[in-house]
Amino acid sequence: MLSEGTIIALSTPSGTGALAILRLSGPQAITQCAKLFRAASGASLDTVASHTIHLGHLYAKDQMIDEVLVSVFRNPRSYTGEDVVEISCHGSQYIQQAILNAFIANGIRPAQAGEFTLRAFINGKMDLTQAEAVADVIAAENEASHKIALQQMRGGISKEIRQLRKELLDFASLIELELDFAEEDVDFADRKAFELLLQKIQRLLKGLIDSFALGNVIKKGVPVAIIGAPNAGKSTLLNTLLKEDKAIISAIAGTTRDSIEDEINVQGIGFRFIDTAGIRETTDEIEQIGIQKAYEKISLATIILYMIDSTCYRSEIALHQEKIEELKRANPNKKIIIVFNKADLLSPNSNNKLYDCEVLEMSAKNNVGVTLLKDILVKTIKAADRRDEGIITNSRHYAALIAAQDALAKVQNGLEENLSGDLLAIDLREALYQLGAVTGEVTNDELLGNIFANFCIGK
Amino acid sequence: MLSEGTIIALSTPSGTGALAILRLSGPQAITQCAKLFRAASGASLDTVASHTIHLGHLYAKDQMIDEVLVSVFRNPRSYTGEDVVEISCHGSQYIQQAILNAFIANGIRPAQAGEFTLRAFINGKMDLTQAEAVADVIAAENEASHKIALQQMRGGISKEIRQLRKELLDFASLIELELDFAEEDVDFADRKAFELLLQKIQRLLKGLIDSFALGNVIKKGVPVAIIGAPNAGKSTLLNTLLKEDKAIISAIAGTTRDSIEDEINVQGIGFRFIDTAGIRETTDEIEQIGIQKAYEKISLATIILYMIDSTCYRSEIALHQEKIEELKRANPNKKIIIVFNKADLLSPNSNNKLYDCEVLEMSAKNNVGVTLLKDILVKTIKAADRRDEGIITNSRHYAALIAAQDALAKVQNGLEENLSGDLLAIDLREALYQLGAVTGEVTNDELLGNIFANFCIGK
Repeated sequence: MLSEGTIIALSTPSGTGALAILRLSGPQAITQCAKLFRAASGASLDTVASHTIHLGHLYAKDQMIDEVLVSVFRNPRSYTGEDVVEISCHGSQYIQQAILNAFIANGIRPAQAGEFTLRAFINGKMDLTQAEAVADVIAAENEASHKIALQQMRGGISKEIRQLRKELLDFASLIELELDFAEEDVDFADRKAFELLLQKIQRLLKGLIDSFALGNVIKKGVPVAIIGAPNAGKSTLLNTLLKEDKAIISAIAGTTRDSIEDEINVQGIGFRFIDTAGIRETTDEIEQIGIQKAYEKISLATIILYMIDSTCYRSEIALHQEKIEELKRANPNKKIIIVFNKADLLSPNSNNKLYDCEVLEMSAKNNVGVTLLKDILVKTIKAADRRDEGIITNSRHYAALIAAQDALAKVQNGLEENLSGDLLAIDLREALYQLGAVTGEVTNDELLGNIFANFCIGK
Repeated sequence: MLSEGTIIALSTPSGTGALAILRLSGPQAITQCAKLFRAASGASLDTVASHTIHLGHLYAKDQMIDEVLVSVFRNPRSYTGEDVVEISCHGSQYIQQAILNAFIANGIRPAQAGEFTLRAFINGKMDLTQAEAVADVIAAENEASHKIALQQMRGGISKEIRQLRKELLDFASLIELELDFAEEDVDFADRKAFELLLQKIQRLLKGLIDSFALGNVIKKGVPVAIIGAPNAGKSTLLNTLLKEDKAIISAIAGTTRDSIEDEINVQGIGFRFIDTAGIRETTDEIEQIGIQKAYEKISLATIILYMIDSTCYRSEIALHQEKIEELKRANPNKKIIIVFNKADLLSPNSNNKLYDCEVLEMSAKNNVGVTLLKDILVKTIKAADRRDEGIITNSRHYAALIAAQDALAKVQNGLEENLSGDLLAIDLREALYQLGAVTGEVTNDELLGNIFANFCIGK
C-alpha cells in the first residue's frame, strides 16, 4: 500500500564522480539484479551469501553497461529489512541513467523520496524518531547538530518515551477495566503509584519540550543579535568574527545569508550573527524602520550581545542601565551579554555587578577579547545543553509532546478532583496516542507520507 | 616513489546525498580502518574475509562519527591490487569531512587525482590504455562515447598492439644479435618475414590513426556545419532539430554552447550542429567577417550540410554546382550532404547524380525529412565506425602511434635499401618505445604524472 514492490534509486549525490551507488530494495531486488549481472567468478547472485561483494558486468539487453561491484544484503539483515542490492558503478551520469533505465525496463520502480527509510521503519528496523533523524544526520552541517541527529538516530529520545508509555498503558488498561466493573466500585489501579508515574512522565516531557528551543537553534545555527547604539562597533565585531573564520564559512555549502547576517562555526557549534541597526531615539522615518527591524531580530535571537562604546560610557551610564533593564524584562529567557567595546581606548571601569549579566571588555577592531567572547558563547550553549537526557529538534515531536503534556495535566487534575475513571480514560487515551505518534507506535499513512516526503531520493 | 603509503579519498560525487563512499588503498588500509571501526558483530576487520561487508560504527577519538558499512577487499583482489576498504557512510558533507579527518589524523594520506587507478596500473591490474579509459568512461555523456571508452577500458586496442610489439621485439633482438656477429655477415632475422610483420603493424597503425578523427569527434560530439546561402532555412533546421530533442539537450550537463551551436543526441551519438552565416558575395565588411567565420566552422566540421533553397534552385544551378565542387575540393575527407529545403513549396527536381553526394529533400519548417536527415547522419558515423577493430580517442595515443608509424616507415625504407642492421636498430628501438608508451610497457614517472593528473580525485 504505502510502499510496495521493488524499488531503485541513485543513493549517492547526483553528478559525476569516481563511483556512484544505485540501491535496490524489495522482494525482486536480488533476482532482478541476478538477471542483468554476470559475475566474473561465474557465481549467481541468487545463491551468494548475504553481505558479500561481487565483481562483474551489468548488461541491458546484451549491451554491456559497465563493470560494477554488486553488494548483496539478504532480508532481514539490510537497511530496509528487505532484500537489498547495492550496485557500485563508474560515476558517469550516462552509466547511472543507463543502469536505472535497465532496471525500470525490467519492472523495478523508481523509489520515492525517503522510501528506503520508510521501509526500514515499516519493517521494524528503526522507530519513527530514528527514521526521522536519518534526514537530519544527512543535513547536519556542523558537529553539534550532527551529534544531536546521530544520538536521535540511535534511539536517543524514544527509548525512554516508549518505556514510560508502556507503564502508562498498563495503568490505562486497569482504569478501563474499572469501567467494566463500575457498579462494584473497585479501584484496580493504584492511584498513588499512578500519580508518581504521571509526575515522572511530566518531568521527562517538560525536559524534552524545553530542549526544543535549544535543539532547534543548534540545528539551524544559534542566532546571536548584536545590538547597541550607532557607532558602538557592531559591524566591526561582525567583520572581525568573519575574517577569522572565513575559510570555515565558505566550507558550509548553501549557508543562507543576507547582507547583515553570517554564520560562523565556533568549536563545532554554528552561530548566526545578526548585525542590527544602531538603536537610538530618532525622528528619521527610515532609521525608525531599521530600528524596528533590530527589535524583530532581537525577538528571534537566542543570545543578545548588547554593545557599549566604552569611550562614551561614563556619560551614559544611566541610559544604558535603563536600556539593559528594559531588555532583560522583555527577554526573560534569552542570554544577554554586555560587551564593552573600544576598551583599549578608555577602560569603562564597568561595575560588573551593576547589570547582573555576563560582562566582557574587548576591542573588536584590534581583535582583543574576541576569543573570550567565543568561549562565552560556546559555554552558554553547552550549559543549556542537556544532550545526555535527550534533546528534540523536530517540530512534529514538539507538537505531539505538548499535546501529551496537556492531556496528562488534565489526567492529573482529574485525579486530584477524584474524577471518575471514564473521564480520566479520555485524556489518558489522548496522551497515549500523542506519545505513540512520536515513536511511531501509533501512526497512519498520511503522517508517514508527510514525514518521508522531506527525505532525499535514495535514502 | 610515484605512489606510496596508504591513501584515502571521497569516491562519490561531492555534495549531499543518501550515501557517500570513502575509499582507502594501501598496506595500512585494513589495519587503520580496523582501529576506527567497531563492527556490530564484534568481528575485527583484520581477520574478516575479502569481499565481505560489515555494519558498525566509525569513531574518531572515542567520538562516534557515523553508522557505516565497511567493505573489505584484500590484495590482490581489489581495484588497485592493494588492500582496499570502502566506507559507505551517510551522505552528509560534515560526516564525509569528519571521516577523512579521522584517517588523516591517523597518518593516512589524502589521495591525489587518479592515484587509485595509477596504483591499479602499477600493480598490473590494467595496462595504460585501460587506465586512461577509466577517466573517459566516467566523462562519457552519450552512448557512443561510452561504448568506445568501455571497450578501451576492457583492453580493446592494447591487446593487438602488445602482441605485434612482442613479435617486433623478437625481430629487433635478432637484428641486434646480428650486430654482435657483424664480421661474420650472417642474417639471423628472416628479412621476408620481417617485412610481412612490418606491413601488418603498419596496417594496424594506419587503422588506429585514421580512427582518431572519428573517435575524437564521437567523444566530443560530431560537429555538423549547416551552410548555404542566406535564407535557405539553416536556422529553421537548427530550431527544428533542437525543439524535437530539447529534453535530451537539457539532460546533458555542462554542454558548452554558444548562440549558434547546440548538441543533440541522435540514436546515442552526440551531434554538435553549427549554424553559420549565409555565404554569398558581399562588400559588407561585417558580413564578410561572418562568412569568414562560416568557413572556419566548415574546416572544423566532420559533416557539412549544404542547404539549398528549392524555390530558387532552378535559376541558380550553375552557381550551386560551382560552390559544391569547390567545397568538395577543399574538404576531401568530409562528408557533404546536400539538403534541398522548402521542397514542399517547389520540388527542386534535383538530379541526384549531378553532385556525386548524398542528397536529401526536406521542409525544415514543417519537420518533413528531418528524421531521414538524422538517419543519414547516424549512418555516416556508423559506416566510418571501425569499433570492432579498435578506435582511439586519446591524443597521447595518437601522437605515439604517429611516431611509431614514422619510425617503422624508416625501417621499411632501410630494408628496401638494404641498410645495415645497426641503422635499422635505431628506428626499431624508437618504434618499440612508442608502441610500449601506448600500452604502458614503456613508461616513466613524468608521463604517468601527466596522465593521472587529469583524473578526478577518488578514482
